[in-house]
Amino acid sequence: MKGKKALLSVFDKTGIARFAEELVSLGWDLISSSGTADHLRKAGMPVTEVSDVTGYPHILGGRVKTLHPLVFGGILARREVAGDMKETEQFGIPLLDMIVCNLYPFEETARRAPELDELLENIDIGGVSLLRAAAKNYRQVVVLTDPGDYDGIAAELRSEGDVCQESRQKLALKAFRSTSAYDAAIVDGLAEATGSAPTHLPEKMPLAFVKKQDLRYGENPHQEASLYLPSLADLPWEQISGKPLSYNNILDTDCAMRGCALLQDCCGALVIKHTTPCGMACGSTPREAYEKAVGCDPVSAFGGVVGISKKVDMETVLAIADRFTEVLVAPDYDDETVEILREKKPSLRVLRWKGGRVSPLQFTGTWSGLLVQQDSLPPLPLPDKGEWIGKPRPDLWEDLLFAWKVAALSKSNAISIVKNREAVGIGRGFCSRLHAVDFAVRQAGEKARGAVLGSDAFFPFSDGIEAAADAGIEAIIQPGGSVRDSEVFSSAEKLGISMFISGWRTFRH
Amino acid sequence: MKGKKALLSVFDKTGIARFAEELVSLGWDLISSSGTADHLRKAGMPVTEVSDVTGYPHILGGRVKTLHPLVFGGILARREVAGDMKETEQFGIPLLDMIVCNLYPFEETARRAPELDELLENIDIGGVSLLRAAAKNYRQVVVLTDPGDYDGIAAELRSEGDVCQESRQKLALKAFRSTSAYDAAIVDGLAEATGSAPTHLPEKMPLAFVKKQDLRYGENPHQEASLYLPSLADLPWEQISGKPLSYNNILDTDCAMRGCALLQDCCGALVIKHTTPCGMACGSTPREAYEKAVGCDPVSAFGGVVGISKKVDMETVLAIADRFTEVLVAPDYDDETVEILREKKPSLRVLRWKGGRVSPLQFTGTWSGLLVQQDSLPPLPLPDKGEWIGKPRPDLWEDLLFAWKVAALSKSNAISIVKNREAVGIGRGFCSRLHAVDFAVRQAGEKARGAVLGSDAFFPFSDGIEAAADAGIEAIIQPGGSVRDSEVFSSAEKLGISMFISGWRTFRH
Repeated sequence: MKGKKALLSVFDKTGIARFAEELVSLGWDLISSSGTADHLRKAGMPVTEVSDVTGYPHILGGRVKTLHPLVFGGILARREVAGDMKETEQFGIPLLDMIVCNLYPFEETARRAPELDELLENIDIGGVSLLRAAAKNYRQVVVLTDPGDYDGIAAELRSEGDVCQESRQKLALKAFRSTSAYDAAIVDGLAEATGSAPTHLPEKMPLAFVKKQDLRYGENPHQEASLYLPSLADLPWEQISGKPLSYNNILDTDCAMRGCALLQDCCGALVIKHTTPCGMACGSTPREAYEKAVGCDPVSAFGGVVGISKKVDMETVLAIADRFTEVLVAPDYDDETVEILREKKPSLRVLRWKGGRVSPLQFTGTWSGLLVQQDSLPPLPLPDKGEWIGKPRPDLWEDLLFAWKVAALSKSNAISIVKNREAVGIGRGFCSRLHAVDFAVRQAGEKARGAVLGSDAFFPFSDGIEAAADAGIEAIIQPGGSVRDSEVFSSAEKLGISMFISGWRTFRH
Repeated sequence: MKGKKALLSVFDKTGIARFAEELVSLGWDLISSSGTADHLRKAGMPVTEVSDVTGYPHILGGRVKTLHPLVFGGILARREVAGDMKETEQFGIPLLDMIVCNLYPFEETARRAPELDELLENIDIGGVSLLRAAAKNYRQVVVLTDPGDYDGIAAELRSEGDVCQESRQKLALKAFRSTSAYDAAIVDGLAEATGSAPTHLPEKMPLAFVKKQDLRYGENPHQEASLYLPSLADLPWEQISGKPLSYNNILDTDCAMRGCALLQDCCGALVIKHTTPCGMACGSTPREAYEKAVGCDPVSAFGGVVGISKKVDMETVLAIADRFTEVLVAPDYDDETVEILREKKPSLRVLRWKGGRVSPLQFTGTWSGLLVQQDSLPPLPLPDKGEWIGKPRPDLWEDLLFAWKVAALSKSNAISIVKNREAVGIGRGFCSRLHAVDFAVRQAGEKARGAVLGSDAFFPFSDGIEAAADAGIEAIIQPGGSVRDSEVFSSAEKLGISMFISGWRTFRH
């Protein structure tokens, strides 16, 4: 071996023979072992066995092939340090100029949820060590882990005779991104397989996110954006028709899925605008629920994201197709409905929600760092363990529970007014609770008479109760917890409003 | 060496001597090298050198000490596979039962922003390989990387004679969490040092978040929550007084810092409630700006988060201390003011904002995965490259620019009404633009006459323009882009409203 030396050890053999051929034609020597060596020899390439370099036999089922000072010395030796160079000569350590390596497919294996033995078997040790050592010494050793980079590097070698520092840096960063993501996936996979997911938020939380799709843009056209998934996770829905989802579609769909989850006990519908419901209702059919949900604010429903909690039938599909809707999400669709939607509204994004979500944790980036919390909704214990202030109204309980769901799903401060499990007024996103009540009451109009009201947090003063009473509200559900609770409670009693104190605050910002 | 064998290789020597002593007293043999071996010998412990195990000399400045088949064979050999056991005997591979290892301090080094050479020098190769190999074979090899775990494991060894599978699993997960986070920090550190941060969102995005603090609870009391920072990042503020921040404080402070950044060109103040401004103004002094910001909605300002864009003086501090405020954030404070605040309002959280933020990317978790986008605000090009519809009103430009900032900072749909760089009405969080205009106009009252209006997105219909004209609005700034723009524009012209079309949408959900 007189030329530059590349060590090749790849599980994914895509493009490796062609790239190796390029290297050989440029005068490089190839070092390899096992599967990769066989593959290259079959393609007619001359290959030196790793065991011929190390003088160490192939033992323990190949577990320690490359983990040898003659290999790692050849990667890590400092070319600019005379002592290192002297030692490499003395000990016969061949200097390596390139490492081409990709890893045992841990992620793919973990997705199959195999036995723990097989999972552990697919944790690559030697390959990660090779990649990391080469990436550490990237200024001397080119490190390639993505077959997609072979052609570019071959071209650079052909035209320039070497790989420039900028390319080397990019490849080194890619290698460390790959090893970091690999180990984060191992954490997720092992935690799942051993049932030892941490019960509290850990000190170090490595997150391996893999790009699922680039988005046209972010929240606004000037923002570049992509959707990422944890490497072992799947999307909780399947898109069965329509244009690609936008950033804001995905945000609104989040709220729609939460709504579908909250309305599992009825045939429910909701329309989302700007990440919050502009209408929400239960009905005897999906169609009825949908029309009621639209009815709360028909103007805002234009261009909304629609969620239906049960299987969607043809009648409902036709009603939705008649209005401008951005996204429709539901657990299932009657057989012919999707064909109709594809034909009548080819741009409407139709999602079949599988019932889950990507993670039980909720991530919110801020300028102060990443806020991580257990996700709130759902499942959340129903607010039925509280106590009544004033005369209990079990006859209104179904509506109170529904009002609680609407308020919990709406942006804070949120007030919902509900009659017959149909939101007739929703105030949300207000800085003051009274403003939220005022808006909801005005939106409900005469429908507020005999209706119930839900609040996502306590009433700081009794003014909101008075406004509700004026509008004819008969019962209120709220968590309680204000320093003025006694004043608020007695105001409700005086005004003849029954109040259920749930103890559960459901802010959603 | 006849007992169980532990290999110890630690950079952080905290507690290692005491733990090693426990192992020796329980009959374990210790294997170590270099600094760790010296440290243990000084503490009187018998230690076998790694080079005596491998028979390989200490070369290349110690770069390849443990990267040897006799070490990794001893970790990775499958105890249940007869062939492996036969080979370990044949090749004199000592079976290792425990790896105690922590890594070169890459993170600490990177925080000092050193030369690239020093940074690369601090990338640990051998230690990561040891940890990963032991964690892969955790059912046979105990892996310890956190000195905080020494005591518990020593106790378990003493009382049970071995480490149970559950403890081994936890330790293995911790090891992989640690190696994943380590490599993610390397990605960040190298990208920073080489100026090669990716220009687009990468395919694999490993994120190494380290817990900064546990929070009392999350958005709501039933949600566990913590604040995490990328391992190389610092908080962009220093807390100089008050109680610990809550989850919602951090959310609101995010908006307050964005406001301070947007108001760098004036002496500005804003009050945040539920992640959106309930008041925002410029003034000739911080005090004046603060009073004007409160004036927009004095009731909602109660219990808010206050941001001041310039150094805060005593007068302003006293005014803020007189009202119930959760958090005060500003770039600086006059010398004595903080003492006064600590004394008068010991619970008020006071932050000195250093002017930065943790990341240029914005993360938003959803049930469909992690949305990642370039952060929007600021810096954002000012909206001064647009065009006038109707008669240009350069005399109102300062107010229009301020109205644009208020709308950009407010939750969508957002409408701001501004007079003399003071928000007099803010509608936000509405599902319909007309509702937002109605609310802002009603809040502004008579102050709407002669004022200007800002909108974070286009007007879908001319009804919002008509409502603004009715209230006496003289100029509007909005991005444009509706299919009905021509109808909207001609409505403005007809009603004598000047309209500046910025082309910039600034949704914030």
